[in-house]
Amino acid sequence: MEARVNNGPIPGRVVGLPTNPVVTPLLTDLYQFTMAYAYWKAGKHNERAVFDLYFRKNPFGGEYTVFAGLEECIRFIANFKFTEDEIAFIRDTLPGSCEDGFFDYLSGIDCSDVEVYAISEGSVVFPKVPLMRVEGPIAVVQLLETPFVNLTNYASLVTTNAARHRFVAGKSKILLEFGLRRAQGPDGGIGASKYCYMGGFDATSNVAAGRLFGIPLRGTHSHAFVSSFMSPDEIIDKSLQSSDGSSTCEDFVSLVHSWLSKIQWSNSFHGIFGETNQSELAAFTSYALAFPNNFLALVDTYDVMRSGIPNFCAVAVALSDLGYKAAGIRLDSGDLAYLSCETRKFFCKIEKEFGVSGFGKTAITASNDLNEETLDALNKQGHEVDAFGIGTNLVTCYAQAALGCVFKLVEINNQPRIKLSEDVSKVSIPCKKRSYRLYGKEGYALVDIMTGENEPPPKLGERLLCRHPFNESKRAYVVPQLVEELMKCYWPGSSDNPRVDLPPLKDIRDRCIKQLEQMRPDHMRRLNPTPYKVSVSAKLYDFIHFLWLNEAPVGELQ
Amino acid sequence: MEARVNNGPIPGRVVGLPTNPVVTPLLTDLYQFTMAYAYWKAGKHNERAVFDLYFRKNPFGGEYTVFAGLEECIRFIANFKFTEDEIAFIRDTLPGSCEDGFFDYLSGIDCSDVEVYAISEGSVVFPKVPLMRVEGPIAVVQLLETPFVNLTNYASLVTTNAARHRFVAGKSKILLEFGLRRAQGPDGGIGASKYCYMGGFDATSNVAAGRLFGIPLRGTHSHAFVSSFMSPDEIIDKSLQSSDGSSTCEDFVSLVHSWLSKIQWSNSFHGIFGETNQSELAAFTSYALAFPNNFLALVDTYDVMRSGIPNFCAVAVALSDLGYKAAGIRLDSGDLAYLSCETRKFFCKIEKEFGVSGFGKTAITASNDLNEETLDALNKQGHEVDAFGIGTNLVTCYAQAALGCVFKLVEINNQPRIKLSEDVSKVSIPCKKRSYRLYGKEGYALVDIMTGENEPPPKLGERLLCRHPFNESKRAYVVPQLVEELMKCYWPGSSDNPRVDLPPLKDIRDRCIKQLEQMRPDHMRRLNPTPYKVSVSAKLYDFIHFLWLNEAPVGELQ
Repeated sequence: MEARVNNGPIPGRVVGLPTNPVVTPLLTDLYQFTMAYAYWKAGKHNERAVFDLYFRKNPFGGEYTVFAGLEECIRFIANFKFTEDEIAFIRDTLPGSCEDGFFDYLSGIDCSDVEVYAISEGSVVFPKVPLMRVEGPIAVVQLLETPFVNLTNYASLVTTNAARHRFVAGKSKILLEFGLRRAQGPDGGIGASKYCYMGGFDATSNVAAGRLFGIPLRGTHSHAFVSSFMSPDEIIDKSLQSSDGSSTCEDFVSLVHSWLSKIQWSNSFHGIFGETNQSELAAFTSYALAFPNNFLALVDTYDVMRSGIPNFCAVAVALSDLGYKAAGIRLDSGDLAYLSCETRKFFCKIEKEFGVSGFGKTAITASNDLNEETLDALNKQGHEVDAFGIGTNLVTCYAQAALGCVFKLVEINNQPRIKLSEDVSKVSIPCKKRSYRLYGKEGYALVDIMTGENEPPPKLGERLLCRHPFNESKRAYVVPQLVEELMKCYWPGSSDNPRVDLPPLKDIRDRCIKQLEQMRPDHMRRLNPTPYKVSVSAKLYDFIHFLWLNEAPVGELQ
Repeated sequence: MEARVNNGPIPGRVVGLPTNPVVTPLLTDLYQFTMAYAYWKAGKHNERAVFDLYFRKNPFGGEYTVFAGLEECIRFIANFKFTEDEIAFIRDTLPGSCEDGFFDYLSGIDCSDVEVYAISEGSVVFPKVPLMRVEGPIAVVQLLETPFVNLTNYASLVTTNAARHRFVAGKSKILLEFGLRRAQGPDGGIGASKYCYMGGFDATSNVAAGRLFGIPLRGTHSHAFVSSFMSPDEIIDKSLQSSDGSSTCEDFVSLVHSWLSKIQWSNSFHGIFGETNQSELAAFTSYALAFPNNFLALVDTYDVMRSGIPNFCAVAVALSDLGYKAAGIRLDSGDLAYLSCETRKFFCKIEKEFGVSGFGKTAITASNDLNEETLDALNKQGHEVDAFGIGTNLVTCYAQAALGCVFKLVEINNQPRIKLSEDVSKVSIPCKKRSYRLYGKEGYALVDIMTGENEPPPKLGERLLCRHPFNESKRAYVVPQLVEELMKCYWPGSSDNPRVDLPPLKDIRDRCIKQLEQMRPDHMRRLNPTPYKVSVSAKLYDFIHFLWLNEAPVGELQ
């Protein structure tokens, strides 16, 4: 892969390169090139076209979606330019009959004449409403179709999945994305970490993503670490300085042993557990010696209540003698509701019996194939988990592995175009459009409405007819208390429109969390949520149906 | 992302960089670094450890899996070395109390002392049998866990998915991977294209993957291309030279018109269709002018039988007048079984009525949300499709979006380690092992068997007891007619063992196709396939159960 240089085509509009260097203008379907050639050959390549990027159905049986991936799209077009090697490859790939002039044309193109209007990344969005409106020379815009759809489909899907997990877990829980090893490829992992954070997760285990995007990193140790030890005898350097540096415990291993014995024979715990696993005790002690301020132990390698928890407590209380506070435990198997409650009781008894202040509140993290359903089930059973580590189901979007974003031609040479289908949900909404979100008295969003580009915008306090785009009988009057225009200019092309800057990830995350909080609760619930209304203006409605009748063939029953 | 230099740590063992530049030693879970520090702090970091990479359950309700991703793992370790910036980031990320010596240690490590034995990429594999055995200093091997699991999990899953689609479609069909736009991120797309080809697909639409891996590329045009035209009047350059260059048709548009009219009013087609869509006719004509040798038309933008097929045939027969042969049509909606059969009849009638030789065999490609089930249903209904374009369900592995490859410690300092679990399927098989595939008289594989590393290998024609690793009563004698050792040395570390070269993708694909053909049919069928047997030697069985009893705590009923 040759090096790419970080310069946008237009001075003053420099945008960083795509995060993943595999994102080049060749990351597209071959037919975009065959079409580009056919447009060029027909002299149509510079005809001005408008495409909408949208999806048709909310994922996961829900009634909302979070839009994500915009920044990567803008990075892509800002740096869209073919290298000589790429041109040579396309020349080799297309039929030999293709004329040289086309390759000269391809060498010269960039996105300086393409305009991108889009809904802000991290916004709550709904089916049929354009997430992006891309306008420019048809051959160029067509080449953007596949990368744009690729960069937004999974991004929006996994952000929505993260938001749904957050919704079920509740605001007070810590949510950790642990999906890298099960993600669909290395970039699936990088993207998942970025977009799960955007959707409301607190941290990731993925170091590369932490570095690329500044996402907080979290992690402890695995079962292999525990089973790599045999017994505490193998620990050589046993000394540990106290937290304030005032003293040194010369034999921390003995201190742990004496605490384990004290706990075992105390009134509260007598007969509750016997001999604990010694390789586990060695692993915990060793980990505490390495990270006295961040001691978090995986307690289920052998037996949670009879070995893991007692061993953890012995080490944690020994640390507490030296002024350190243990970070907590992680459960990675078994009945998480039951084990977390038993663990909490154990911690509270330690606090009471040995006067270790705050020990009852020691954090409990749970992992192991968690998803929306298991989080919901844990809530119903009652649990004492403070943090959830979620991997496979989150990052692969196991419940629904794809979102169907599409990119449809809605206008060419100022002529509106409609894509018909026998399936009404697949009919596209024609015309270069604007869209607005209308808010009601209680501050909740009531409806999204699309209008023709040149229609006057909805007015505050003025009654407006909102029509279902395809169902004649579904319509409603709305008196908006607040009108928000949804699409902003993220790439002005050759126009003079000011460009909205790409916000930092943290701001996008904040927007996402805030927008989700502002949704009417019945749209958000997991079971039978109310669909949010998406509409068109009366004028656009009439126009859609005029075009439809005009284009559709009249059948003949035989 | 800083540049990486393409040099393996050991002269003479240069292996290319990972395909995706995001694959760096930081593409791992944070806990691999915290564990590395704890190992280092305990003086254990150079202890020799053996890890097995394996999965527990075949995906998609089947009884086989194809192993893929090995080459990317070897590329990863061949180039495994931290940059200064990466070390600085790890230092910032770990607690401030971590000692400097650790970062010096990290700066120095590479994989020159790591040995990787693996089953050849593209092999048919089964649960519990190690796909890779990785041996080396524990801290280093632990750092490889996440990238190895990431690089093999999705690769094996999607290769298996492709193989399953091929199995249902049958050998004679052309299978095209069209998944880039719905893949889980850009690399999901690149990886999907590579591994679907490996699993038996014929081509991809993904240009970047075609370039990176030499996969054949295929593609035509989209609905947008069709609807971007208004009428044939807008075609300016109407001339087309004949295929042999001997003459030029000055008005190809008129030739198409005259053919459309001839077809419409011919005996065979009279009354079958009326006026066809003119923007579609213009698009087809224009595409044929651009690609007279590769004319393939998407025929469902308006109405397949009343517009798309008649328009296609008019253009195709006109091309045939000039000595060109049309490549075919693509159906992207509707009842594919019915439409493909009706289309075939239409083509045959054209051949007969107008004497266009071979026209009846014009290729029919179908796409639109295809998966194993729809392919199976099409087979049962009867269809005339020659090629299938498959996207979403294939590349996102919609039916099961993740494979559960794990990486477990099986030995440290020559001491075997077992990971227990209340769930028997999660108990690991301890020891550094070898594994063999035993074949029977009919040439089919009968059973895979794992043995301790130093056990003598199974002998040809000699009776051998194969035991289920965990179920006492399941065992069988086998007299192998052929014994294949499964794991080969792909990275010898500091040993003198010769390294098996990484074969080209095409060879891996051939191996995969051949191996699948050699499987006993009852393991391959879609409904209720027979599980393939995976076993351990009697000696390993006894050892597993000795260790298990030794490690498991004895419960106390209360």
